[in-house]
Amino acid sequence: MNLMKAESPGPQVDKSMPHVKTTAKLLYIIYTVMTVLEFVALLLTGLPVFDSVCMAFGTAGTGGFGILNTSVASYPIASQWVIAVFMLLFGVNFNVYVCLIFRRFKNALKNDEIKVYLSMVICSIVVITINIYESCQGLFDALTKSTFQVASIVTTTGFSTTDFDAWPTLSKIILLLLMISGACAGSTAGGLKISRICIAYKAMKMEINSILHPREVKAIKMDGHNLDTKTLRGTIIYIVIYAFILISSVLLISFNGYDIVTTFTSVLATFNNIGPGLSMVGPTANFGFFSDFSKWVLIFDMLAGRLEIFPIIMLFRPSIWRGTVFKHRKTY
Amino acid sequence: MNLMKAESPGPQVDKSMPHVKTTAKLLYIIYTVMTVLEFVALLLTGLPVFDSVCMAFGTAGTGGFGILNTSVASYPIASQWVIAVFMLLFGVNFNVYVCLIFRRFKNALKNDEIKVYLSMVICSIVVITINIYESCQGLFDALTKSTFQVASIVTTTGFSTTDFDAWPTLSKIILLLLMISGACAGSTAGGLKISRICIAYKAMKMEINSILHPREVKAIKMDGHNLDTKTLRGTIIYIVIYAFILISSVLLISFNGYDIVTTFTSVLATFNNIGPGLSMVGPTANFGFFSDFSKWVLIFDMLAGRLEIFPIIMLFRPSIWRGTVFKHRKTY
Repeated sequence: MNLMKAESPGPQVDKSMPHVKTTAKLLYIIYTVMTVLEFVALLLTGLPVFDSVCMAFGTAGTGGFGILNTSVASYPIASQWVIAVFMLLFGVNFNVYVCLIFRRFKNALKNDEIKVYLSMVICSIVVITINIYESCQGLFDALTKSTFQVASIVTTTGFSTTDFDAWPTLSKIILLLLMISGACAGSTAGGLKISRICIAYKAMKMEINSILHPREVKAIKMDGHNLDTKTLRGTIIYIVIYAFILISSVLLISFNGYDIVTTFTSVLATFNNIGPGLSMVGPTANFGFFSDFSKWVLIFDMLAGRLEIFPIIMLFRPSIWRGTVFKHRKTY
Repeated sequence: MNLMKAESPGPQVDKSMPHVKTTAKLLYIIYTVMTVLEFVALLLTGLPVFDSVCMAFGTAGTGGFGILNTSVASYPIASQWVIAVFMLLFGVNFNVYVCLIFRRFKNALKNDEIKVYLSMVICSIVVITINIYESCQGLFDALTKSTFQVASIVTTTGFSTTDFDAWPTLSKIILLLLMISGACAGSTAGGLKISRICIAYKAMKMEINSILHPREVKAIKMDGHNLDTKTLRGTIIYIVIYAFILISSVLLISFNGYDIVTTFTSVLATFNNIGPGLSMVGPTANFGFFSDFSKWVLIFDMLAGRLEIFPIIMLFRPSIWRGTVFKHRKTY
């Protein structure tokens, strides 16, 4: 369980799968099958083999590396929709797929995170479609662009089909918030993860309730069962550490003197493993102009974001290097 | 104690003053004496009586209302320094003054918050002075401007002597971070309060430590004594609620379609009770151009920020209006 916890993104490991080996195998299979499915689907939309392979790999790992300078913009609309759908699928908690494979549909339905994920995605797509409608060629064009961009950002993939830096503020703010949230825990996405936000939201509600009813004791439920205090505390503090690193990085990057939006979104885009940000680091630009110092800060952010902060912070703890941790463990 | 907790800003009430009535009297006296002192000092620097009274009141409550359109910019440099020093003094936890009056110098020195407050202020002044040096008339001018603006922002007063929106990004980012932190708990300042940030920082350190040494139990110390779990949990969740309201407000304001910096800093400036933000709500501008809807959001933010969120959230809980809370209490 500890191994799983350290390795898998998100605050909680589902105990319904106790055999690490079996689970690992299953996850590999799901990952591979979905990648192959996307590859085939892209071939069917008329993409060359090489492009299909690269795009499928770029989607599966939510990496977001295209092989063209225009990212996904020059591919046919059908391919864009295929990529958008698969990005969203790779943003789903893989536990849900495991449940579906074992026909435990009830368990899959109980997953709170997936409901929030879908609502967030649908709301964002609707609002952005309306917001960018005027600058697009009709409703379908607006819907395609907004769906693709929402899918790309919420799953922290980072592909783009349009210069969303030119979109109105509302759309840009929604994308920035999606960068922070990221998709589901247990998916290949980065960011804070939706389950953490759900837990924080429930903890907030509980705290407010406890002021009104100080003697009432209520447990926080997640996916139908109670959340233990340790996970709860760890999750809330994770969010605070996240904010702390975000703010510190923004301060360090601001020494470079670029505008506030560039400074802020360069950190958001790297720390959440997105790729593009806004303004000077928008989807049509790159990070080449930053000073070496800023690049090191952003390198740290990318690693810390991808590894969910703790492993990378551990590297900076002297006791790790002095070996006292392992000595300490031996005494038990 | 509960009354004090609800009424006084910051996460903790110092139990060294158990007599609410005496404490309240003492706080009034300190507040009045400091206001009078500032009034006299301003008179001595050559300000008219009316201006001195208004500026002293504007400083004491960290309100930041000047009587001239130029705020403090057209007053003599000496007056600016007097106001800057008194802003910083009103940002100090009033418990420190109480300790000083009772000659409990050790207690006053034990206060962790005041050390962080002073370090933050000094570091910010030094960095901003260097950063804006080129655009000022010599070192003293840069020092005056940076000291005044740091004092005004960190204490959430909001006076200005210069258009800091025209400063380099580094200085602006520092001011934005000071807006979030605010000054000490138990002062007249708004914002998150430094003691909350200290507690969060210590909680982060403890969490990271607990991963390395899972069986070690350590208490978090604040001002020399242990912090109870309830205060700790409440503080951390307060920060999460703060972030949640901040982000929701930014999203709502972005419907207005102004640029990202205006959108973001208008919320920061109101939620932390500062006054001026950046860009279109910078120190030379005002909030008049926002839509009525946005103004209601910002009104909510100002009230929520000033009352430390919980009282204002309570208003929106139906059980408060149904009277069940009071019924509930009667059963004990």
